[in-house]
Amino acid sequence: MSAPSSRGFRVRALPGIGEIRPGDDLVAVIADAVAAAGEPLADGDILVVTSKIVSKAEGRIIRATDRERAITDETVRVVATRPTADGGITRIVENRLGMVAAAAGVDASNTDDGTVLLLPEDPDASARLIAAGLRERTGKLLGVLLSDTLGRPWREGQTDVAIGAAGVHVFDDLRGTTDAAGKPLLVTLPCVADELAAAGDLVKGKASGCPVAVVSGLGRLVGDLDLPGARSIVRPAERDLFRLGTDEAIAHGMAAGRSAGYSAGRAIGFAEGFAAALSAAERERVRV
Amino acid sequence: MSAPSSRGFRVRALPGIGEIRPGDDLVAVIADAVAAAGEPLADGDILVVTSKIVSKAEGRIIRATDRERAITDETVRVVATRPTADGGITRIVENRLGMVAAAAGVDASNTDDGTVLLLPEDPDASARLIAAGLRERTGKLLGVLLSDTLGRPWREGQTDVAIGAAGVHVFDDLRGTTDAAGKPLLVTLPCVADELAAAGDLVKGKASGCPVAVVSGLGRLVGDLDLPGARSIVRPAERDLFRLGTDEAIAHGMAAGRSAGYSAGRAIGFAEGFAAALSAAERERVRV
Repeated sequence: MSAPSSRGFRVRALPGIGEIRPGDDLVAVIADAVAAAGEPLADGDILVVTSKIVSKAEGRIIRATDRERAITDETVRVVATRPTADGGITRIVENRLGMVAAAAGVDASNTDDGTVLLLPEDPDASARLIAAGLRERTGKLLGVLLSDTLGRPWREGQTDVAIGAAGVHVFDDLRGTTDAAGKPLLVTLPCVADELAAAGDLVKGKASGCPVAVVSGLGRLVGDLDLPGARSIVRPAERDLFRLGTDEAIAHGMAAGRSAGYSAGRAIGFAEGFAAALSAAERERVRV
Repeated sequence: MSAPSSRGFRVRALPGIGEIRPGDDLVAVIADAVAAAGEPLADGDILVVTSKIVSKAEGRIIRATDRERAITDETVRVVATRPTADGGITRIVENRLGMVAAAAGVDASNTDDGTVLLLPEDPDASARLIAAGLRERTGKLLGVLLSDTLGRPWREGQTDVAIGAAGVHVFDDLRGTTDAAGKPLLVTLPCVADELAAAGDLVKGKASGCPVAVVSGLGRLVGDLDLPGARSIVRPAERDLFRLGTDEAIAHGMAAGRSAGYSAGRAIGFAEGFAAALSAAERERVRV
């Protein structure tokens, strides 16, 4: 992290990207916007692309009336549920990409009325297509991240994270290196892809119609197109300490505990009842 | 978010900040580093300061031998536990600041051998002191964030987040505004303080000895020193769907379910045992 190139970077929003329609060629759209902006892309630039416009270009649009079914279709596993202000239920689920996201990442904002957006079919593949196309068009060594906005446990609000990546190191692997005091940084694994997505959100904004940010000056994080994608950021549920919502986990435990406790209590109770009846019968016989 | 000033920003690491010792005046240290760097601070600049150097300046250093006790002292509530590679236990806890963090945020990296660092006593207050001091020295409208590195559920690796804030809007409140399609952005509340901390980490690095980053060009996020601090980012446990680790929550449920099931089973078993004994006694009497 001490290379001069890493001492500073710039993040700019790419203006002039209009509404994206199914079938649009995002490589051409982005290249045109870059040309119109008057600042060409440079080696080591990283483009942070809002996944929403990739979904639109890929035609991942469905009728809003199918939203709940769409969430169910995208769901691998329900992690937790939360009542909404309007009396509905928000499902926080693990989706087919392994991501844990509210409503499985199905999105009803920035869409035409009556429609909702699904996440790209394969965000890492989409990022690779855009990165490869832009590298070919510009001859520059570029990285591409697809970003989405996620809430998180324990902290209010949302931050943008990387759900797709191509040509970018998603982790700045410090394991094996040492800190300034010479101690090994054993468990430190900064997720630079998520940090880049967060930086991009600071200029893209949700309402500004600027779905692409360009990060310049962090070329040390750019590499081959076959680097591990954002899928590698997802922690498998079986290794996750928070794989289930607290209420859901308590309910699971309750059910298991109740049946175990019932069997144990019934056996004890049977013995107690039997003994009580015998001593009652005994008293009777004595009276005779 | 469409103001021209928000269309781009720069992040640079502030070189020349040496080892921080208890009692050091961080305002003077940072001001000197800015002067040495040759680029003065400007209105709207936001300084992202690694909380570690604030802890050191505030003398929040204890002997490493007391680490486990220090974690216990900083702990309000154990959220989850995880076995470590060396056979120990990592406690993920809610600390006295309300943050959920591994080892309560007690830090053994970048410290002298045999010592560990506690988080600042009151990171928002520390940020206010630094921001007020730098504003007075420079006459510029500056913001200050204190950053720390946290892991997160569901995703591998860590990102930097804001644990202290002064003179910075920690949320970019979009509630009440509308998206590009005119739909209200009801639940969107980007945590820009965490996104700024993440951006800062991309230049500060863990091992580079550059504990301060300067973000320029996002003055729209800078405001009064009495804006809500980073404490307002913390979600209270009672409103958190993941207030307890899954295994811990299942164990809670099991215990409650077992005692409830035991009582129910014992009552049924008693009746069954009593009836069984009576019919046995009955058969005996007949035989007589």
